[in-house]
Amino acid sequence: MLLTSDFVKSRYEALRSRAPGLHVITDIEGASDPDVTALFAFKLPAGIAPRLPNLRLAASVGAGADGILSAPDLPPHVKVTRAVEPGLGFSMAQFVSLQILRHFRSLPAMERQHAAGEWKRMAVLDASQLTVGIMGLGSIGSVVADALLALGFRVIAWTRTSARKARVPVFVGESQKDDFLAQSNYLVCLLPFTAETKGTLDHASLRKLPKDSFVVNVARGGIVVEDDLLALVDEGHLAGAALDVFASEPLPASSPFWHHERILVTPHVAAQPTVGPVVEQFLENLQRLAQGQPLLNQVDRSVGY
Amino acid sequence: MLLTSDFVKSRYEALRSRAPGLHVITDIEGASDPDVTALFAFKLPAGIAPRLPNLRLAASVGAGADGILSAPDLPPHVKVTRAVEPGLGFSMAQFVSLQILRHFRSLPAMERQHAAGEWKRMAVLDASQLTVGIMGLGSIGSVVADALLALGFRVIAWTRTSARKARVPVFVGESQKDDFLAQSNYLVCLLPFTAETKGTLDHASLRKLPKDSFVVNVARGGIVVEDDLLALVDEGHLAGAALDVFASEPLPASSPFWHHERILVTPHVAAQPTVGPVVEQFLENLQRLAQGQPLLNQVDRSVGY
Repeated sequence: MLLTSDFVKSRYEALRSRAPGLHVITDIEGASDPDVTALFAFKLPAGIAPRLPNLRLAASVGAGADGILSAPDLPPHVKVTRAVEPGLGFSMAQFVSLQILRHFRSLPAMERQHAAGEWKRMAVLDASQLTVGIMGLGSIGSVVADALLALGFRVIAWTRTSARKARVPVFVGESQKDDFLAQSNYLVCLLPFTAETKGTLDHASLRKLPKDSFVVNVARGGIVVEDDLLALVDEGHLAGAALDVFASEPLPASSPFWHHERILVTPHVAAQPTVGPVVEQFLENLQRLAQGQPLLNQVDRSVGY
Repeated sequence: MLLTSDFVKSRYEALRSRAPGLHVITDIEGASDPDVTALFAFKLPAGIAPRLPNLRLAASVGAGADGILSAPDLPPHVKVTRAVEPGLGFSMAQFVSLQILRHFRSLPAMERQHAAGEWKRMAVLDASQLTVGIMGLGSIGSVVADALLALGFRVIAWTRTSARKARVPVFVGESQKDDFLAQSNYLVCLLPFTAETKGTLDHASLRKLPKDSFVVNVARGGIVVEDDLLALVDEGHLAGAALDVFASEPLPASSPFWHHERILVTPHVAAQPTVGPVVEQFLENLQRLAQGQPLLNQVDRSVGY
């Protein structure tokens, strides 16, 4: 028995076609069912979990589990998982590379020249002289790093705790964060959203980036202090930003990010887990749960990812 | 003694600072000097070579030597070289990836939404379901292929004669060209410009691409029949094109490519060899020439690359 919520149709259909015997409830707000043992959703609003006394698994449909973990009333014994699949890393690598290359190769200027019928060559800069700093080097960050290396950039990474085996120099923890930021001409935020990362890219941190750096946030809006970022772009310390995620989504019409010439707002479309693998993973975890086996991609609830 | 021509200032300066003893003449049109033994240039206009009786080396400053080989009066004994350096492959990989990702990830639509203040999500497609076909798998094409693999695309390549060791499936020669084209959702032209490749991407060839394919030409304009490409875009068989090179450059103001909504014209800026390595390579070749050793990156004049 299973509860799903705020789903795109394709995920629901994939679930039904692969596990036709599964009892699926989609009315999450009205749900109050002692038979519900698993949840498959982006978000878990407060008030739902207490009405599901036998809930054992809350699976995030996305790569981040923050939408589930933010539920204040999720009992500690409920296991939380997140979606991990290779397509997600590639989609993110594409989006991040696109935003960095759009800026690095002056795409808007080329588009303006095309519209104006103007033939004016611009210098081709050497990417190996510029450093892309990636915050968060998990299953997604590693794929992004590989793509940027293949495009000729120097790449470094920062992780909160451990330096896993990596193809790029890794800076670890608060003590090495400033060194990392001071070298990052492009800063790519791929951190999980946790109590610790909330607001971590504030004025003091962003000010440590080299002048004319460019920020790409494809993780969660709440990691960046939006007013601080905007001020640093407007005062000219930062060259600009590509923002796919925001503290409040959809981004309110009143946000100064909209229409900003040196910022590109995109509607949280950098990457979406491919439906098939994520549904398979969820069904596999239902089975493992029933057999008392360790789950795939289980989140450590104490750290948030 | 040396003759250089149509140079950007930086190349001239690099040459002077690394080889201050070298006698450098830059007045190519007026040149008529029995002491000139080497030429370092993009283009060799007709009429120059016969005035340089002791010319032994004509070195192209660019990756293609077609601007030199097209001189009808270059004596057969003059050796021709071209520029090969790793930065060139990375610049090309960036430019090609940018153009493919711009189309694949609907960047213009995202930019329009940003300008309009509109939050409307679009589906993220699976790149592994799309094939990028690269024509020409030399030192540059291989780097481009690696970058597109790292971005999650399926990649195939076509080469004129031999299948060198490659990370991607390689189609060889005329007999496998149609199969190659029929699979290429993105067609990337990186062929050298030779008598054989001139006009090879004509209506018949481009019509073999799957419907809604997208063409990226970063090699030489003359390889693509421009009117044929335009017709196939306008009639909807091709989704669009990114064109960095043209039969006539600068692209004439009268060209229908300018302002075209589904074509992006860029002013031959996909890649430029980094000055330092190219100058070093040239100086090394001057030395090898003097010592009778084989030259670096010598062009086979009978095939044109």
